[in-house]
Amino acid sequence: MSDRSSLPSPPLVGLFGFGAFGRLIATHLAPHCPIRVHDPLLSPGPLQPGITATTLEDAARCPIVILAVPVARMQAAARAIGPHLPHRALVADVGSVKILPADILCRELPPHVRIIATHPLFGPQSARNGIAGHRIVLCPLRGTSAAPLSAFLRRTLGLDVILTTPDAHDRDAAMAQGLTHLLARILSEMGPMPERISTSSFDLIRTAAAMVQNDAPEVSHAIAHLNPHAGAVRRRFFTIAGRIAESDDAHDAALFPETAFQ
Amino acid sequence: MSDRSSLPSPPLVGLFGFGAFGRLIATHLAPHCPIRVHDPLLSPGPLQPGITATTLEDAARCPIVILAVPVARMQAAARAIGPHLPHRALVADVGSVKILPADILCRELPPHVRIIATHPLFGPQSARNGIAGHRIVLCPLRGTSAAPLSAFLRRTLGLDVILTTPDAHDRDAAMAQGLTHLLARILSEMGPMPERISTSSFDLIRTAAAMVQNDAPEVSHAIAHLNPHAGAVRRRFFTIAGRIAESDDAHDAALFPETAFQ
Repeated sequence: MSDRSSLPSPPLVGLFGFGAFGRLIATHLAPHCPIRVHDPLLSPGPLQPGITATTLEDAARCPIVILAVPVARMQAAARAIGPHLPHRALVADVGSVKILPADILCRELPPHVRIIATHPLFGPQSARNGIAGHRIVLCPLRGTSAAPLSAFLRRTLGLDVILTTPDAHDRDAAMAQGLTHLLARILSEMGPMPERISTSSFDLIRTAAAMVQNDAPEVSHAIAHLNPHAGAVRRRFFTIAGRIAESDDAHDAALFPETAFQ
Repeated sequence: MSDRSSLPSPPLVGLFGFGAFGRLIATHLAPHCPIRVHDPLLSPGPLQPGITATTLEDAARCPIVILAVPVARMQAAARAIGPHLPHRALVADVGSVKILPADILCRELPPHVRIIATHPLFGPQSARNGIAGHRIVLCPLRGTSAAPLSAFLRRTLGLDVILTTPDAHDRDAAMAQGLTHLLARILSEMGPMPERISTSSFDLIRTAAAMVQNDAPEVSHAIAHLNPHAGAVRRRFFTIAGRIAESDDAHDAALFPETAFQ
């Protein structure tokens, strides 16, 4: 049995942003390392066991810093913390898109800082029963392989780690997240859905739509507008939907030339 | 304890069609009543305990007759069995749409025949672990309340019974089934989906699409073309999708006037 007191103490983690996702991160990391949170809405002081709200400077002085801020605020956050980061600090974001935050972090953070862009493919709702088994994307950008972080996420948190590049991530996410959000918006505009006359498959689609309809507006905005591949997926979806609608209408017109059904 | 031999013997059920759904019906009814199946692809003779393949005339002579044939073949089936049905036979279809089969059955079957149109809101795939808890729509059309059938479906098979009219059914099904099938077709035309970079919500959508992509072509055709409300839902979906695509494009153009992302 090892003598616990002889183990190196776990690194301090500085967490920026204590919204829904920031709180989820803090809850799952607190058993493993002390957390210093900075959020303009929090007064400094203890929040929960292992989680302490603090000043921007204090949170930025940690060897590991996580930016859980909206993608649209990433540049301001990077500029604000840059001067306070310790030598070779590891900085990670958790945004839903990766090309844009990756560019911002590489441009705005001091050259000595190590950077890994991440996208946890889960949220407070899908991970309400725990995060083990969920997926997280890692894009190592500067100064480090993702190996040590990846080992921690796999072994300690039980996550399925996907290593890729920001561009490959955004291409795939434009389909997965882009289509889910687009469909949720269309369904919500279609008005009330049938309550009882439904099928197992349609119930799954409604569940999926409800899951993302609860997302923060910043998340939906990033998925629709801050992923450079989103527009192409949206237009492709629209073109194919239109082709199907047109061909079905033509088929109907041939089947029922006298609109027997009207 | 009642003497089982003094109970009335269960009614013979004539089943027309032994496709995927016909087989599902036969499997779940056989423990409760003997089944006589007619399908042009079957030679007369025993199939499974309680299920016997037989001639059209023989299957039509049963006091309860279930038509598990494609909606497009309903008229031919009704005309063929009409002359053989016993007095006050109960005839039910199981089609995915209800206005069209209801019209056909009321027009083609002899006036003495009792008619209930039905739509089991499950299939071989969603009910692979049993039918209890699944939903079935009943539309009593002629000569009977749905009460006795409804009681059997609820108490003996554990189904959730929804009583409604063919028109109300088709309105709701045009949303539930129409949108699911439309979305499955769009996704299938969009090509390969990301395998690993996905989310719980997108996984649900893909599961839903895969469930209906396995439907028989006749089922998909009936849902798209033999529900008089399907066209309006399809056009509404397309119009809303187009409005969202256009407004997102305009938003992108305002955000990135110099196409910084291209």
